Amino acid sequence: MSKLTDVPKRILIGRALRSDRLGETLLPKRIALPVFASDSLSSVAYAPGEVLLVLSIAGVSAYDFSPWIAVAVGVLMLTVVASYRQNVHAYPSGGGDYEVATTNLGPKAGLTVASALLVDYVLTVAVSISSGIENLGSAVPFVVEHKVLCAVAVIVLLTLMNLRGVKESGTLFAIPTYVFVAGVFIMIAWGAFRGLALGDTMRAPTADYHIKAEHQGIAGFALVFLLLRAFSSGCAALTGVEAISNGVPAFRKPKSRNAASTLAMIGLLAVTMFCGIITLAMTTQVHMSDNPAVNLLHNGVPVGPDYVQNPVISQVAEAVFGKGSFLFIVLAAATALVLFLAANTAYNGFPVLGSILAQDRYLPRQLHTRGDRLAFSNGIVLLAGAAILLTVVYGADSTRLIQLYIVGVFVSFTLSQVGMVKHWNRHLSTEKDQAKRRHMMRSRAINTFGAFLTGTVLVVVLVTKFTRGAWVALLGMCIFYATMTAIRRHYDRVADELTAPEEPSDDSVRPSRVHSVVLISKIHRPTLRALAYAKLLRSGSLEALSVNVDPAETKALKDEWERRGIDVPLKILDSPYREITRPVIEYVKGLRRESPRDAVSVIIPEYVVGHWYEHLLHNQSALRLKGRLLFTPGVMVTSVPYQLQSSEAAKKRARRRQDWNAPGAVRRGPAEQRTKEPTAGN
Amino acid sequence: MSKLTDVPKRILIGRALRSDRLGETLLPKRIALPVFASDSLSSVAYAPGEVLLVLSIAGVSAYDFSPWIAVAVGVLMLTVVASYRQNVHAYPSGGGDYEVATTNLGPKAGLTVASALLVDYVLTVAVSISSGIENLGSAVPFVVEHKVLCAVAVIVLLTLMNLRGVKESGTLFAIPTYVFVAGVFIMIAWGAFRGLALGDTMRAPTADYHIKAEHQGIAGFALVFLLLRAFSSGCAALTGVEAISNGVPAFRKPKSRNAASTLAMIGLLAVTMFCGIITLAMTTQVHMSDNPAVNLLHNGVPVGPDYVQNPVISQVAEAVFGKGSFLFIVLAAATALVLFLAANTAYNGFPVLGSILAQDRYLPRQLHTRGDRLAFSNGIVLLAGAAILLTVVYGADSTRLIQLYIVGVFVSFTLSQVGMVKHWNRHLSTEKDQAKRRHMMRSRAINTFGAFLTGTVLVVVLVTKFTRGAWVALLGMCIFYATMTAIRRHYDRVADELTAPEEPSDDSVRPSRVHSVVLISKIHRPTLRALAYAKLLRSGSLEALSVNVDPAETKALKDEWERRGIDVPLKILDSPYREITRPVIEYVKGLRRESPRDAVSVIIPEYVVGHWYEHLLHNQSALRLKGRLLFTPGVMVTSVPYQLQSSEAAKKRARRRQDWNAPGAVRRGPAEQRTKEPTAGN
Repeated sequence: MSKLTDVPKRILIGRALRSDRLGETLLPKRIALPVFASDSLSSVAYAPGEVLLVLSIAGVSAYDFSPWIAVAVGVLMLTVVASYRQNVHAYPSGGGDYEVATTNLGPKAGLTVASALLVDYVLTVAVSISSGIENLGSAVPFVVEHKVLCAVAVIVLLTLMNLRGVKESGTLFAIPTYVFVAGVFIMIAWGAFRGLALGDTMRAPTADYHIKAEHQGIAGFALVFLLLRAFSSGCAALTGVEAISNGVPAFRKPKSRNAASTLAMIGLLAVTMFCGIITLAMTTQVHMSDNPAVNLLHNGVPVGPDYVQNPVISQVAEAVFGKGSFLFIVLAAATALVLFLAANTAYNGFPVLGSILAQDRYLPRQLHTRGDRLAFSNGIVLLAGAAILLTVVYGADSTRLIQLYIVGVFVSFTLSQVGMVKHWNRHLSTEKDQAKRRHMMRSRAINTFGAFLTGTVLVVVLVTKFTRGAWVALLGMCIFYATMTAIRRHYDRVADELTAPEEPSDDSVRPSRVHSVVLISKIHRPTLRALAYAKLLRSGSLEALSVNVDPAETKALKDEWERRGIDVPLKILDSPYREITRPVIEYVKGLRRESPRDAVSVIIPEYVVGHWYEHLLHNQSALRLKGRLLFTPGVMVTSVPYQLQSSEAAKKRARRRQDWNAPGAVRRGPAEQRTKEPTAGN
Repeated sequence: MSKLTDVPKRILIGRALRSDRLGETLLPKRIALPVFASDSLSSVAYAPGEVLLVLSIAGVSAYDFSPWIAVAVGVLMLTVVASYRQNVHAYPSGGGDYEVATTNLGPKAGLTVASALLVDYVLTVAVSISSGIENLGSAVPFVVEHKVLCAVAVIVLLTLMNLRGVKESGTLFAIPTYVFVAGVFIMIAWGAFRGLALGDTMRAPTADYHIKAEHQGIAGFALVFLLLRAFSSGCAALTGVEAISNGVPAFRKPKSRNAASTLAMIGLLAVTMFCGIITLAMTTQVHMSDNPAVNLLHNGVPVGPDYVQNPVISQVAEAVFGKGSFLFIVLAAATALVLFLAANTAYNGFPVLGSILAQDRYLPRQLHTRGDRLAFSNGIVLLAGAAILLTVVYGADSTRLIQLYIVGVFVSFTLSQVGMVKHWNRHLSTEKDQAKRRHMMRSRAINTFGAFLTGTVLVVVLVTKFTRGAWVALLGMCIFYATMTAIRRHYDRVADELTAPEEPSDDSVRPSRVHSVVLISKIHRPTLRALAYAKLLRSGSLEALSVNVDPAETKALKDEWERRGIDVPLKILDSPYREITRPVIEYVKGLRRESPRDAVSVIIPEYVVGHWYEHLLHNQSALRLKGRLLFTPGVMVTSVPYQLQSSEAAKKRARRRQDWNAPGAVRRGPAEQRTKEPTAGN
């Protein structure tokens, strides 16, 4: 806040409102937690189920391994959280993994991280929405019967909301996230109380079902592979942890410390919820199958293709709270809502990352400008389109979509942690203070362990999931990488071409005189204004130019010109084919040929209308002509606008648009501060 | 030709090629016939069948009325042709029915005719393509099995061809049209020879079928109504006659006489073919039913929904030439091709009419300019979209589509003929020469009879077809009418607002000084060029303006500015939120507030790239800023383009585009001549 008030100019140019607003966006921890946690906490809604699904391949006996897998996921989670706490302290500027990788491992590693994260955003939307629909479906069967339709509808809704510019509000995130967390903890506590104190036998709706093992008596390498696959699926619980490292600037001071403790909080909550749900699932005997239609038996008969397998969290809630009970419904709704909010984080994260990439010229420059609605819209539509495509192709089946997920996350984790190790090595090589050195070495040890563990998991994920869909995610990463490299190369090439010579001796840059030409179609207010302006410019010479597309009209024009005594010579170009653009272009080129050292200034009267449909009716020839003139060397093109009454509507619309809040504004923190922090890249 | 050569300037401005081309487009009669005839001649491929279909409702005995209906259609056709011969002589400028109605009955009647014709173009495409597919299907069963798909594919193909700008070539039209006409005449002649001279019994493939009457023993008013319905359907043969009245300027001299004799030729051919096919259908005992699945019996059993009812012309051809014979295949192919060409005439007629309507400001003005590819593209896509919609909704069933057809044609016929009567009345009131008066009175008599007959048919068509689909066509007409009225009203309102005052005393139009502002982001070649140009303009004052979105970059800019010793003051605007547009707009508004009598000239350096995807990467801020500045009063906006190497590609593309031939160019005739003829309306 203090930084913002010491810019007195802002009051002069009427910005008081906006700076106030930005002050509000600095997040206290209690709001920052839900803003950044919905993504990672919501994954406990599907991650435990995915573990059981994979284990079921080896039959229900393999379920016994699930607590160990839960422990492994928990250890990994705590490691990743501990590692990212180092990131948050070392790189508080909000560049996140992209910045860490670029600074320490070079631009290619940075771009790899960025591509991975972009793919991840798409998958966050697809997976979270699909899972949200499945959770909602456990309470509202209609939803799960029209899964793909409902999923696409929710994506479209989120997209429209973000295109309209719904502000990412802390409170909006806080309520469902806290209700969800509270619900899960009440469920775990009440389940433990019923089981341990009351001695109740809680039975999940699928407790009486049986699982036919796809591979009976699996052992040895095959068993290890299966356990690794189950572990990979469980790792879905880790997504979203890295988000906080992009959001440090949005925290209140001390920023890094607050971010780090929020991160620790999220990690602990996620691990507890994940392990609690797995334990309850074991206790209540949830039975889930990878292929329920065939391998899930009820009374010895396969349940068939119409069977809907509810998510673990809803089966457990049914066992603990009772089917259709109030708490069951609340938890199902909160779960779905948190999952939709998790999808929404991708809509917010995308522009934040896009802005940073645009700053380094890997993406179109306008993405860098805050609040560039058009640019963000394109990004949002791209994100939504890709997510809808995946949702439709994979039938909104979260289990199949998860095969694609987390590749990107672990690419990002691994490169970021390796980068952090290099970071500490570099700092240790210069740091003399022993206390600081000890601290750095501790941090380096944490990040080294993190790099080792996440790297191992990345290999495991790639090996166990490549043919099951991870290749799609890798392909997406390659496409993003190639596109961004091409954009950067283009910008570099243009920058080379544009570089100004040190000695401004180039003749083509310094014309000697300007010959002005005012285009006239009729004599009306806009042309009179354009003529008046043109005269004021006092260029070398001035003439009016009209194209004869209709002899009668041209004659009338000439007569009126004389009658009004306009003291500018009027030149008429013939155009037997009623073209306008070509004769003018040819004439201008002719002028340039006659005196190549002169520049030509073409002045076009335009009238400004307010609605898009009015645009279709006006200025089309002028627009086309302007477009073509820009390609003619030695020409400058001047529009003299004349505002019609209807243009007021457009003015108002433009003003409304400027007050628009870009998605991601909250989690990015105030721009003022971001630009004053050290930034990544060159 | 002679008129074109007396414009020596054209050679100077490099147009020789185009004027040659236009010379070629003047049509000799032998080419004009197929160009204008494909629409009206092709309708004999479906009109006779439609007559039989309607009659079949009263059972096969009602077929006996078909020769009478053929005679009635023939009389009507000859009347209409005779009437239009008068139009062609009286209005040789190519304005057609629209011009006749506007001049004689006022703009509302003219607009009604125009709306009717626009709807008609859409239906010409839908009906002709559907019928073409049915005819092709009689030789290639695959086509008729995937009717809608094939019909849409042909429409899309035609659309792409016209969007690409395939020239409407006389030869392209001539071959299939002459093959078709020759094929039908050979069929009639050979059929007559076999039947009368050889005494062969020719039997159509449906000769052994029986028709179950939907209404047995129909009589009295119901029978009259049915006969009128059959007659209405037969009137489909008259579509396309009016086309020639739009095409007079395309004929060689003497234009009107040549057009009139071509029209007579088309009329005679159409009547002969229509009557010949009906006669052959009676002789070979073609059986067709309105609802073949139920009412067409084979061996006493309904043929069922899978039965494909082939068109009359193909059944007759099969009976006369033999199934699968060479001539049968040739005729089927020629019929389909002529029908597709008939659809193509709508693609050509649309821009011709659109251009005339645009001249009268009922449609966007750019449609008036010949060769405005973008505008024509929009029109073509609209036409194709509406035709595809109708084709899909009506299942590419020509019988159902014909219910919508010809309402528009007869609205146009009737209003045009009434207009012609008024035309002669007006001329008779001033004409003294008795010979001329006699001639005019004869013409008036013909047109009066034409107006009476077409008006009656219009009522018959409306009464018999309104609920069967004609309401859709009327609705379409209303939509076109309302849209065009709204466009005209908008143009009129804007024209009022723009009218220049006679005494140029208005202060806002005459600023006293110009304050120039050059926008600078970096120092590179484009900015140096913009600064150089700005200096040459010698405006009242000049400064450079930059927006501080990144303090480091701004500092570098300031340093370089000083180092290079640029003698223009550099003003830096603060923009804590990385916006560009708003600070600049506010600054410009501030300048205007300080000295309201001055104008502000904003000079923007731009670099010009060659590909659309490069546009996405550049100039977006400049574009947005320009758009907003146009709404700020007292501002002129100057682009100083800097052409990058890649802009060469765009230049070449633009040149290619200019050489594009607009659809309808052939039938409209050379523009030079059109503008010298008297034109319609105001």
